[in-house]
Formats: sequence, C-alpha cells, structure tokens
Amino acid sequence: MRIDGLQYANWSEKIFRQLREGGVDAVHVTIAYHETFRETVLNFEKWNRWFEQFPDLIMKGQWASDINKARETGRTAIFFGFQNPSPMEDDIGLIEILHTLGARFMQLTYNNQSLLASGCYESEDTGITRMGRQVIKEMNRVGLVIDMSHSADRSTIQAADLSGRPIAVTHANPFDWAPALRNKKNDVIRAVTENGGMFGFSIYPHHLKNKSDCTLQEFCEMIARCADRFGIEHLGIGSDLCQDQPDTIVEWMRVGRWTKDIDYGEGSADKPGFPDMPAWFRDNRDFGNLENGLRGVGMSDAEVTAVLGGNWHRFYAANFIPQV
Amino acid sequence: MRIDGLQYANWSEKIFRQLREGGVDAVHVTIAYHETFRETVLNFEKWNRWFEQFPDLIMKGQWASDINKARETGRTAIFFGFQNPSPMEDDIGLIEILHTLGARFMQLTYNNQSLLASGCYESEDTGITRMGRQVIKEMNRVGLVIDMSHSADRSTIQAADLSGRPIAVTHANPFDWAPALRNKKNDVIRAVTENGGMFGFSIYPHHLKNKSDCTLQEFCEMIARCADRFGIEHLGIGSDLCQDQPDTIVEWMRVGRWTKDIDYGEGSADKPGFPDMPAWFRDNRDFGNLENGLRGVGMSDAEVTAVLGGNWHRFYAANFIPQV
Repeated sequence: MRIDGLQYANWSEKIFRQLREGGVDAVHVTIAYHETFRETVLNFEKWNRWFEQFPDLIMKGQWASDINKARETGRTAIFFGFQNPSPMEDDIGLIEILHTLGARFMQLTYNNQSLLASGCYESEDTGITRMGRQVIKEMNRVGLVIDMSHSADRSTIQAADLSGRPIAVTHANPFDWAPALRNKKNDVIRAVTENGGMFGFSIYPHHLKNKSDCTLQEFCEMIARCADRFGIEHLGIGSDLCQDQPDTIVEWMRVGRWTKDIDYGEGSADKPGFPDMPAWFRDNRDFGNLENGLRGVGMSDAEVTAVLGGNWHRFYAANFIPQV
Repeated sequence: MRIDGLQYANWSEKIFRQLREGGVDAVHVTIAYHETFRETVLNFEKWNRWFEQFPDLIMKGQWASDINKARETGRTAIFFGFQNPSPMEDDIGLIEILHTLGARFMQLTYNNQSLLASGCYESEDTGITRMGRQVIKEMNRVGLVIDMSHSADRSTIQAADLSGRPIAVTHANPFDWAPALRNKKNDVIRAVTENGGMFGFSIYPHHLKNKSDCTLQEFCEMIARCADRFGIEHLGIGSDLCQDQPDTIVEWMRVGRWTKDIDYGEGSADKPGFPDMPAWFRDNRDFGNLENGLRGVGMSDAEVTAVLGGNWHRFYAANFIPQV
C-alpha cells in the first residue's frame, strides 16, 4: 500500500504510467492554489477528461474503498485537494458542493492571511477567524479535511483544537530538523497528532535539511525520530512532488493574483525557480527508495507499510465520509 | 409508488409535509430556468440546506435506488433538473460536473433558440445544432437525461433519434387534445416513446383542454387514449405544479434576462400571472384524486401504478447511471 499525501505535478500520461511503475495506489493531488470556484471547477473538468482518457491507469478517488478498488484493478486513485480556501470564496455553501465534486482536503491558508486563518509567512497570527470557526464546523460535517501545511503556528494549533475531527499537515517537516518557515515546531506537530491527525513528510527541497543535498538516510532518520516522538500511526508521506512543472508555475503558486511584486516564497532572487529534487526521489518510480530507506533505519515491515500508505488509508477511511 | 416528473414549487416545510401526505415518493424539481452555472450552484446549495434542515421529510435523489430508500424511511426523494441548458453555459465539461452535483434532467431549450436546439416558440426550427450533437453524446455518457418539453418539433424528433439513450418530455400534453404551442403533436410523442422515452402529463392549466376548468375525467380519458396509442409503459405524470409561487416568478420563467420587453408566454396581457390549478389538483395531497380518476376511466391497479410512478422509476433506473 503506497499513498502519497500531496503532489502537484504537471500531469501527463507519462506521469500516470510512472505512478503505476512506482506502485502508488493513491495520491492526493492539488487542484487549486489561488483559483476561484469556477476556475477550480475547470480543474475538476480537466481531471474528468483524464479519467475518461486513461481509464486503465487512473480513477477518481472519493472514499478509502476506492484505493482498494484501484489496487485490485492496477490503477492509481486520484484524490483532490486545495492548498488555499479560494475555491470556496466567501460562501460556506460551497464546502458541501466542493466535497460532492470530490474535494477531500482544503488548506485554510496558503502562506498569507485568508478569510479563515493566518498563513505561515504573515508577521501576525490571528488564529482562526470568525468565519474560520464556521468553516471548520462545516468541513467537519461534510468530510472535507482541514490541512494546515501552509498555516501559521497559532492558527494550526487552534484548528487542531477546534476541529471535531482530526486534521492534517499533508506536507511539511519538523522545524527543528530544517528551520524553514513552512516546517512545523514540535508543539504544532503535537497538537495535530494528539488530536488523531496526520503529518505527511515533504521531499520538497526547501523543506529538507541541506535542501537538494539531503540524503535518504537523513530523511528516514528524521522520520524514525518523529515516530518515537509523536507515534508512528500519525505519520505518512506528502512528497510535494511538482514534477515537470515550468518555473512559471512556482511563480503562480507564490504570487497568484495577490501582488504585483514578485515574491520568492521559499526561494530567493538568485534561485527563483523550482529546486532540484534529491537524487533518491526524482519521480513516482522512486517509492522503492523510500521503502529501502525506512528499512535501513530499522523500521519493521509493518512500520514501513504504515508510513508509506497504511496510515493515510486509515485516515481517509475515517475522515472523508460525512459526519453522522 | 408515486413519482412526479416535474414541479417548480416555492418550496417550504409546508410543501415538504404535503408531499408526505400525498404519498409522493419522488419528485423531479426544476432548479434552473435561466441561471448561469454559478447561480445554479447556489440553488444546489439551497437544497443542501433543506436536506440538512428537514432530514425526516426529504432526501437528495441521485439514483432510482434512492426512491426505494426514501419509501422505506417515509421521505420524498428530490431529483434535480434544468428547464434550459443555461447552467452548462458553453462548456461541455460542465455536463459531468452538474451530473456529479445531482442534475438528472436538462432541457435542451426553454421556449427560445439555445446553443443546442430550437425552442417551441421560435418561428424557425434549426433542429439540433453542432454543439447540440456533442452535448447529446456527453449527456448520454454521463447519465443526464435529455428533456424536450419546451423544444420545437423538429428539434425534439431529432433529439430522440440522435440520442443513444431514451429521452423525455417531462411535462406536456398531446396537441390534438389541447392545441397549445407547448403541447406535442403525435409524431413528436411517437418519436420520443418509440425510442424508449417517457412522456409526462402536465396539469399546468395552459396545457389542459379548457385550462383550469378541465375535469379530472377529461384529463384521465386523454391519458387512457395515449396509453392505447403510444403504450402505457412510456407514460407518467409531470404535474408542472408551481405551488405558492408569486407572479414575479412566472415573469422570470418567461423573460429571464433575454429581453427587456415583456413576454407573456402561455399567458396574455390580461392574464399575465400563474393560472389557477384545476380543483382536483391543488397540491401534492391530491395524488389520490389522480389515482381515483385513472381507475375511473378503467385502468387496472397495475396500469395506475405504472402511470403514477412505476414507469418513471424504471426510466430513472435505466438512465441516470453513466454509460458503460
């Protein structure tokens, strides 16, 4: 069982085939960064076309049972999520609509302040706003998982506490291992995992110790330490693989339409583009390297399976269905 | 089994309770006349709120099996449809999106020419347009039923012939019984029913012989004649009940945003508003009258059940699921 908790690739038949070669049973894919509702619907439409065109490689994922169906038929189940609440605009009724269309994760913020909470790049952290509290209740009701990967610390801890269902940080690493603004302090990871939530480890170089030079062993040792600290059942992979994207896309991710200035996010003026992925995780065919790496730091078969997919599967099964 | 093939009421708890009193197991409700995609989504949202507020009276209907679920739990299953293709705008990808949200019927035209076909009030009938042919294929694929209630004759016959799956005229009557522009000539009804389609009888007074004064017996005798002529298995009710709507709504139905002039549609300058329903069908509690009326013209139990719901149930079961 292999599940990737987040990717934003420039999808193509080539990548769908690589998902199969890598034995990836399910992947949560980002379909909105700054998109409005209507623009997000266009992205759902684009995926509907791919499901129609490549029925032997991929299928739409709505429930954990779809992962089993995908495994049985040799396909990858595609689950949808947003890195920003922009698709719901200011309309709480859109939460159920988007869930009906297949959305399963929504970040409450993407780096900046949103209507709902504060992003990890803001100097002030409001915590969860008035609307944010209503949105958390509605997301809980319909089964849309709260993702705080790009949110500020106080907002994240509040979200974990306010939410009636477990939340997720789909893609980040511990701040004390790699002190990026996007990585999470221990009290943040603890708030998420203590409430039953999931923490997905990112392989995006800006989140890694020594960036693109981070070794597989360093990465896997960090995971093993987190397992000791937070409980292995709360850990998964959220590779943040942005395969085959042109650098214009990382600019869109960072800048959207919210500024006329350039914003380098985790990059810098001299390194504005996508960083190189580490040599041990170039694309979806490299999931075997992760498996070997985790074994190399002493994890058992059961532990490796849990981190590479079992934990996400259990989380999907519990949190995508509407609340009864 | 009682299924109404079309209503456009001003929905309220009162009407939901009347549906239960009338033993209505399912109803196809109109949620768009001239609405854009986003406006239609707002109407889906409004219904989501009602499903949340009145879970003991109504439930969302997506598949024929939901009618059985509604019967077993003493509720009415609500199925959604559009009287106009405006919700799909000019974007063929929205057809699957709208089906995912729950749409099960879409008229290719509402009185006027559309991007897809000609309406029954146009002087020229183009038949199915280039885009219309593509849309019919896509509606067939996803399981969105083509409804030609407000379409012109040639367009309707072409739609019945081009469609790979049965189509519907959800609400109209035979032109030779009541010569309204909205009623259907025999060759139109034959094209629909010969291809496995359904014809729902309207109780909207402008479609009745003698309008509001039409008697129950006259209405039921007309149905019995249609059963002899077209086959009883193709017939159902599509009452077109517009209960509790203010007259501003019939103006919206007719005028939308397509003209600055007034258009009286089936009404006239001296009778611009909604006509009075006949005394034997004031609201959903009067389905028993229909049952008695059909028995009164000599129909057997099985025939009455077929017309009042069984035929729609079979049609829903066959035509709402995606094509394999």
